[in-house]
Amino acid sequence: MSGRTLIRGGLVITASDELHADVLIEDGRIAALAAAGTPAAEAWTADRTIDATGKYVIPGGVDAHTHMELPFGGTFASDTFETGTRAAAWGGTTTIVDFAVQSVGHSLREGLDAWHAKAEGNCAIDYAFHMIVSDVNQDTLKEMDLLVEEGVTSFKQFMAYPGVFYSDDGQILRAMQRSAENGGLIMMHAENGIAIDVLVEQALARGETDPRYHGEVRKALLEAEATHRAIKLAQVAGAPLYVVHVSAMEAVAELAKARDEGLNVFGETCPQYLFLSTDNLAEPDFEGAKYVCSTPLRPKEHQAKLWRGLRTNDLQVVSTDHCPFCFVGQKELGRGDFSKIPNGLPGVENRMDLLHQAVLDGHISRRRWIEIACATPARMFGMYPKKGTIAPGADADIVIYDPHAEQVMSASEHHMNVDYSAYEGKRTTGRVETVLSRGELVITEREYTGHAGHGIYTPRSTCQYLN
Amino acid sequence: MSGRTLIRGGLVITASDELHADVLIEDGRIAALAAAGTPAAEAWTADRTIDATGKYVIPGGVDAHTHMELPFGGTFASDTFETGTRAAAWGGTTTIVDFAVQSVGHSLREGLDAWHAKAEGNCAIDYAFHMIVSDVNQDTLKEMDLLVEEGVTSFKQFMAYPGVFYSDDGQILRAMQRSAENGGLIMMHAENGIAIDVLVEQALARGETDPRYHGEVRKALLEAEATHRAIKLAQVAGAPLYVVHVSAMEAVAELAKARDEGLNVFGETCPQYLFLSTDNLAEPDFEGAKYVCSTPLRPKEHQAKLWRGLRTNDLQVVSTDHCPFCFVGQKELGRGDFSKIPNGLPGVENRMDLLHQAVLDGHISRRRWIEIACATPARMFGMYPKKGTIAPGADADIVIYDPHAEQVMSASEHHMNVDYSAYEGKRTTGRVETVLSRGELVITEREYTGHAGHGIYTPRSTCQYLN
Amino acid sequence: MSGRTLIRGGLVITASDELHADVLIEDGRIAALAAAGTPAAEAWTADRTIDATGKYVIPGGVDAHTHMELPFGGTFASDTFETGTRAAAWGGTTTIVDFAVQSVGHSLREGLDAWHAKAEGNCAIDYAFHMIVSDVNQDTLKEMDLLVEEGVTSFKQFMAYPGVFYSDDGQILRAMQRSAENGGLIMMHAENGIAIDVLVEQALARGETDPRYHGEVRKALLEAEATHRAIKLAQVAGAPLYVVHVSAMEAVAELAKARDEGLNVFGETCPQYLFLSTDNLAEPDFEGAKYVCSTPLRPKEHQAKLWRGLRTNDLQVVSTDHCPFCFVGQKELGRGDFSKIPNGLPGVENRMDLLHQAVLDGHISRRRWIEIACATPARMFGMYPKKGTIAPGADADIVIYDPHAEQVMSASEHHMNVDYSAYEGKRTTGRVETVLSRGELVITEREYTGHAGHGIYTPRSTCQYLN
Amino acid sequence: MSGRTLIRGGLVITASDELHADVLIEDGRIAALAAAGTPAAEAWTADRTIDATGKYVIPGGVDAHTHMELPFGGTFASDTFETGTRAAAWGGTTTIVDFAVQSVGHSLREGLDAWHAKAEGNCAIDYAFHMIVSDVNQDTLKEMDLLVEEGVTSFKQFMAYPGVFYSDDGQILRAMQRSAENGGLIMMHAENGIAIDVLVEQALARGETDPRYHGEVRKALLEAEATHRAIKLAQVAGAPLYVVHVSAMEAVAELAKARDEGLNVFGETCPQYLFLSTDNLAEPDFEGAKYVCSTPLRPKEHQAKLWRGLRTNDLQVVSTDHCPFCFVGQKELGRGDFSKIPNGLPGVENRMDLLHQAVLDGHISRRRWIEIACATPARMFGMYPKKGTIAPGADADIVIYDPHAEQVMSASEHHMNVDYSAYEGKRTTGRVETVLSRGELVITEREYTGHAGHGIYTPRSTCQYLN
Repeated sequence: MSGRTLIRGGLVITASDELHADVLIEDGRIAALAAAGTPAAEAWTADRTIDATGKYVIPGGVDAHTHMELPFGGTFASDTFETGTRAAAWGGTTTIVDFAVQSVGHSLREGLDAWHAKAEGNCAIDYAFHMIVSDVNQDTLKEMDLLVEEGVTSFKQFMAYPGVFYSDDGQILRAMQRSAENGGLIMMHAENGIAIDVLVEQALARGETDPRYHGEVRKALLEAEATHRAIKLAQVAGAPLYVVHVSAMEAVAELAKARDEGLNVFGETCPQYLFLSTDNLAEPDFEGAKYVCSTPLRPKEHQAKLWRGLRTNDLQVVSTDHCPFCFVGQKELGRGDFSKIPNGLPGVENRMDLLHQAVLDGHISRRRWIEIACATPARMFGMYPKKGTIAPGADADIVIYDPHAEQVMSASEHHMNVDYSAYEGKRTTGRVETVLSRGELVITEREYTGHAGHGIYTPRSTCQYLN
Repeated sequence: MSGRTLIRGGLVITASDELHADVLIEDGRIAALAAAGTPAAEAWTADRTIDATGKYVIPGGVDAHTHMELPFGGTFASDTFETGTRAAAWGGTTTIVDFAVQSVGHSLREGLDAWHAKAEGNCAIDYAFHMIVSDVNQDTLKEMDLLVEEGVTSFKQFMAYPGVFYSDDGQILRAMQRSAENGGLIMMHAENGIAIDVLVEQALARGETDPRYHGEVRKALLEAEATHRAIKLAQVAGAPLYVVHVSAMEAVAELAKARDEGLNVFGETCPQYLFLSTDNLAEPDFEGAKYVCSTPLRPKEHQAKLWRGLRTNDLQVVSTDHCPFCFVGQKELGRGDFSKIPNGLPGVENRMDLLHQAVLDGHISRRRWIEIACATPARMFGMYPKKGTIAPGADADIVIYDPHAEQVMSASEHHMNVDYSAYEGKRTTGRVETVLSRGELVITEREYTGHAGHGIYTPRSTCQYLN
Repeated sequence: MSGRTLIRGGLVITASDELHADVLIEDGRIAALAAAGTPAAEAWTADRTIDATGKYVIPGGVDAHTHMELPFGGTFASDTFETGTRAAAWGGTTTIVDFAVQSVGHSLREGLDAWHAKAEGNCAIDYAFHMIVSDVNQDTLKEMDLLVEEGVTSFKQFMAYPGVFYSDDGQILRAMQRSAENGGLIMMHAENGIAIDVLVEQALARGETDPRYHGEVRKALLEAEATHRAIKLAQVAGAPLYVVHVSAMEAVAELAKARDEGLNVFGETCPQYLFLSTDNLAEPDFEGAKYVCSTPLRPKEHQAKLWRGLRTNDLQVVSTDHCPFCFVGQKELGRGDFSKIPNGLPGVENRMDLLHQAVLDGHISRRRWIEIACATPARMFGMYPKKGTIAPGADADIVIYDPHAEQVMSASEHHMNVDYSAYEGKRTTGRVETVLSRGELVITEREYTGHAGHGIYTPRSTCQYLN
Repeated sequence: MSGRTLIRGGLVITASDELHADVLIEDGRIAALAAAGTPAAEAWTADRTIDATGKYVIPGGVDAHTHMELPFGGTFASDTFETGTRAAAWGGTTTIVDFAVQSVGHSLREGLDAWHAKAEGNCAIDYAFHMIVSDVNQDTLKEMDLLVEEGVTSFKQFMAYPGVFYSDDGQILRAMQRSAENGGLIMMHAENGIAIDVLVEQALARGETDPRYHGEVRKALLEAEATHRAIKLAQVAGAPLYVVHVSAMEAVAELAKARDEGLNVFGETCPQYLFLSTDNLAEPDFEGAKYVCSTPLRPKEHQAKLWRGLRTNDLQVVSTDHCPFCFVGQKELGRGDFSKIPNGLPGVENRMDLLHQAVLDGHISRRRWIEIACATPARMFGMYPKKGTIAPGADADIVIYDPHAEQVMSASEHHMNVDYSAYEGKRTTGRVETVLSRGELVITEREYTGHAGHGIYTPRSTCQYLN
């Protein structure tokens, strides 16, 4: 990617600033910013000039929570790294952090190698990995140190899914203690899965098999309980904590309380919790299955508290938890038994647009949009300022965003490999126009000009967001 | 300031970034930043090049709370705008926001004109004004609208000092309602002065006249009470609130609670509350008088909670409340009666250094240093990004800061017009080396090269820090 | 009243016990209780035997908050001590604590003497006095000591009604300090009257004159604020605090928080806040005026939190704040200006029945009914166990209560001297059948058999409810 | 036990009253109380008259938490039902509720039968049983219903001791759901045993084998966490919850928060947590082993918060958790490995005296002493007013208590079958003089006049303490 690219005339928006500035790209990195109209800016020449007049120039999105090709419930998430990262690019996201999976009885290394094999050569944009730790033992703990050194600096554990990904409190404590030493960050799926499984069994025994019961048995109180417990275990271990896919307002309250005490406790939510609700889970004709994910969608009144949490910084990140399963053939596995519906929603393509809509709706500011979708995920997971901002020295991962274009979300329009959209028919204002990844055009005025294999693995440093 | 200045080789630190970047100044403003060593950077030439190798390149400090020449208790704060702004520059501060005073029975305009007259032509650095509102009535409320339009967008009220600056809750509510409409920001001195005056009278009646009783009668609970009350009044009015000089941990707790609820409530603390304590007020031989200010210094255990508040962003700004009175002849007015000691401490010169020391002590990060001392005060009071950051288009108010130089704070060394230092003998690491104000050298390698009258009045927009 | 009375066969209910026991009265006091059917019980003989089979035998109610003949807003509460105490007896209340009023510029003594004159010889049941302190000064403070010694051990102050009853925070603090020394208990009307008066003025200026605006301007937040402030002032003074007529759930939260900290802070609510709401204030044709009192009625959702507060003992007492004004001629003074409606509701006759209904509705237990209506008010105001319970040695103030009888509340049925009922048409189960005051029959099987002058002044000891 | 006994001249103290009253006993029950000196009282005659002049007449203590003959860690608690209940009587306790134990793989019935066999014919005072549920399964759940019907209405579960008594969250939830239906009360040992066992293993691996490490690894945060979790599970189940032996102030805070929300959540603490601390655990020469129990003793600053919790009713009961192991031969099993020290302290004889001392020390009132030690445990576990108070109809379980006698606690003086006292050398004021159980003299002026077999099994109704 030799040569110079110049982006002229746009409004550069980062987490901290809104500037009328021109952006000069050299060799895939942002070389310089100059105030529009200054002699310094006027003096620049380039091989390629992009006119961003009337547009936003924003950092490419960083989606810190995706599950391409994830094996789950006897099937696989329907997006491969190829289809999924291409869709991400269409949606203005230029970096994903996907989850490599350790299977019980196997090493972290085996899992990580498998995920590298899936991704390598297939991605349209850059990618990195978290590691799901399913089996904490002495070997695993030692491997964690090695992974941190090679750029896999975050480890996910589950308080849900007993018998699959579940770790007990002792395993969680040990992993947290290790991360307190090696700089890793524990990411927690915080739901009391042991208690939930009792409620699932009881619901099914009562004949409550419809998707909406998925939302009833996975109670908000049991998300809040697990969140509290994870916080206390982290406090005992002296380790930071990142709670994934927070959906219950009671869980936000636990995070807020811990943060008031100065603890390094962080929370992520996802667009589905901000825009969808148990009303969707209750859609007839098994349509509710489209919205089955865990933590589950919550009643509508939770949404306001999640938005508030994003404004008060009690929630710091919006990721997608992108984990698509087709309605036909996949979601349908759970007809007659909601517990057999594969858990997950598509969304990697929709995140930046939905959050821009939230700006227009008055939930967040423009800068906060970039902060929660680009800058903070990059900082949280050790990729800043390479990713997540527009600053001299950063990777030239840049989106030219048209804030006035209108669109209607639909499975017929999207690029994710899944047969439905969770936001079918939703009208939003704002659209990705052009996307650069390390200075290369991946989307060019709404045409895909990228290619599988452009995206490269991005090792990460440790968390840059600690107090 | 025609011509171009280039600052090469430093580490540019802003509230959001730490970049190895060169900074190009054109016509008093920052024209561009380029990553060090890139062709773009190497191509730059300039009339003057400053070598910042091994140094920090930071935004000039914004001190949002100073009282130059303030009349108080029958005397005047000992720094004029000339001496005070020169000292500020020595300390790395390039903008102050001082408080114009309305006297009871007079208009805001009269007060503001008087303060303009004091400042104009005398300042070494740029300045702006808040307005102290001592007399809320229909005329005052109308004047507030006009002042907002002409760049005086914040108004201070006092819940303390009955008979002087005091506003009752009705006057406060009216002013808040007005500010909710015109975009102004109410700044509150939050102490229950009515109750405190009872305790003062009782203490003096018991013969408790020493300066340390100043700290005992102005109880932390009564600061917290007033803070809570101001928050509730602001909530009723639908207005934002900025609480000045927070010193009690109980007051921080009130702010934290309100902020968790998503209210636009902000808190400022000052270096004296972070570094000094009631131990100083208890110094013998009336030396305690040097530390008499209101809110008062608190017992040491409050400091940790203030630092925590700065980390959790429950406190957003560190200003100085610079209001110096000489020990000889001024503080001495209160011998035999602590209530007659002029309230105030010198500090405008010490703030940036003390907060850098806090970085070294592990209380805050480097970026947070700049955020609380430069960026947030600028945003809070409508001057960002002109002031408070280093970004294309901003005023070239820049400090070259040597992070390794050592100094000892002392009245014999400082440039404030006051006969003592509140930090006499304190050793700190880090020192201002060179200061530019709108591109002009005010301090050049620790020589004063500025002049009275360089600093100009800076009208402000409304608060840029709202949710 | 000489001789022995025996109450046989009832269920004796006190704050602590439910016992099948016979009650023996000698010389106006309860001499003994014996388990029903025991030889000890069977051995008893008496001059008069009351058969309470199938009935409750409960302590006479203690209403700690009445305003007979109160001058307010240019008129007088419509119940005299004669009519009011007779109505109280009809409703199962055998002791009232009324408020003597100090006028500004006059002594406590003058006010107290005036109230003694109103009451003496006119009451059907026993009575005591609190003292409203309108004018805190050195003389008043000294008089407080004297009043405590002679049995007036509680003092009411107002944070509302500036220019009438209002005390500023300094006056409150001084009175609290005095009560901390002399054992008195400060009772607080907690509303920020200074702020409320601004809102009243603004509402009237907007033409909002209907009674419902009374509820809108007296905001819940301003009750909560004042409650918090009173608590903090009490904490500074080291004094206990009793907050009268708590109506806002936010105020209950302040009390709960203070009580969790172990502070001696108490809260009273009234039946109108438990059973009525702003819906009543909004009744058309000026009917809302019937429900104008301060603190005001709140939206319905507050009721559940008040009941919860009564269950969790964050509220300890239910009094009536009985202060009746006829609709015709009195409430009508405020047509066209809600601020001119005399503040107050009738209720002294309804309290015991409404709270029994609450037992049936599941809000509280039977024992809690007696606790909040009899035992705790007696303890709180220094009359226990003389009043408020059924125990050997106590005054024989006893109600035979039929838990199954049904009634419909109505102005046509009640005995209060007021032309409307706040509960017109409300059906309740449970009814007072017979009432004894110091062993004498005041109500006998729903006939009034008492007489004015039976009731005597009851001096009180200091609060018996402190931690 | 036939005939009449009369107790004259004492001050009768119950949870609600302090009365100068004579108490008449007929056939083992309290027949009547009469005010001292009334004709009614004077008329009484009796077979036996006890002069209680200058003494307190209080209900016999109810100790709701004892472990006679408990098998633990390869040994047995050293008090049998015979020696333990005799010692209880010496200490003024007339009812114990002991814990029958279900072993894993066995039925509740087997455990209960075994405990009946241990107790029957051996007890000096009345006794009842809770049931420890170690193995929740469908059979166990059904048995719970049966036990409730036959008077075993409370069930203890453990969040600690994995592999022994431990229940996982699913088992806890199921038991709570069942108790929500059958009226049972779940009693919880709330410590995160899974996490604690990790810390135990790590401590031992570091060579930290002394008893004091017992206190360090069983962290207060992990007690608070488990307390919070148990509360949330109970909330999901809609069941009440009783947390045993609360020792950490952070756990008290969790209870307070839940109770503020109106939940039926209760907390018990024990004298050892109120009077002893980690200082005792750190006593040299393995003496610390005497104080090893779980939850563990905490640092001294926790004591004030426990006392406050008792005053604010966030803690409702003080039981002993009496579970004595001799220092020689039993505690010594853990030399070189604190985790092998049998967990438990003697105390059944000391409770009433220690709490009376707390009255003298100003921590609680006299009535609160009786409430937390007699009345509330009786109510909580369905034995009121038969046990726990002095009222007509109650069992004549009465203690004549000399409030002025002084004593020194010592193993050489006590009657518990254990070779040390946890309070060796402690001086207290107040002493049991005479004890009646169902009207029979068990202790007569400090002589043991009871006999094994007097005490009988007392079936219990369900909890009488619910909101």
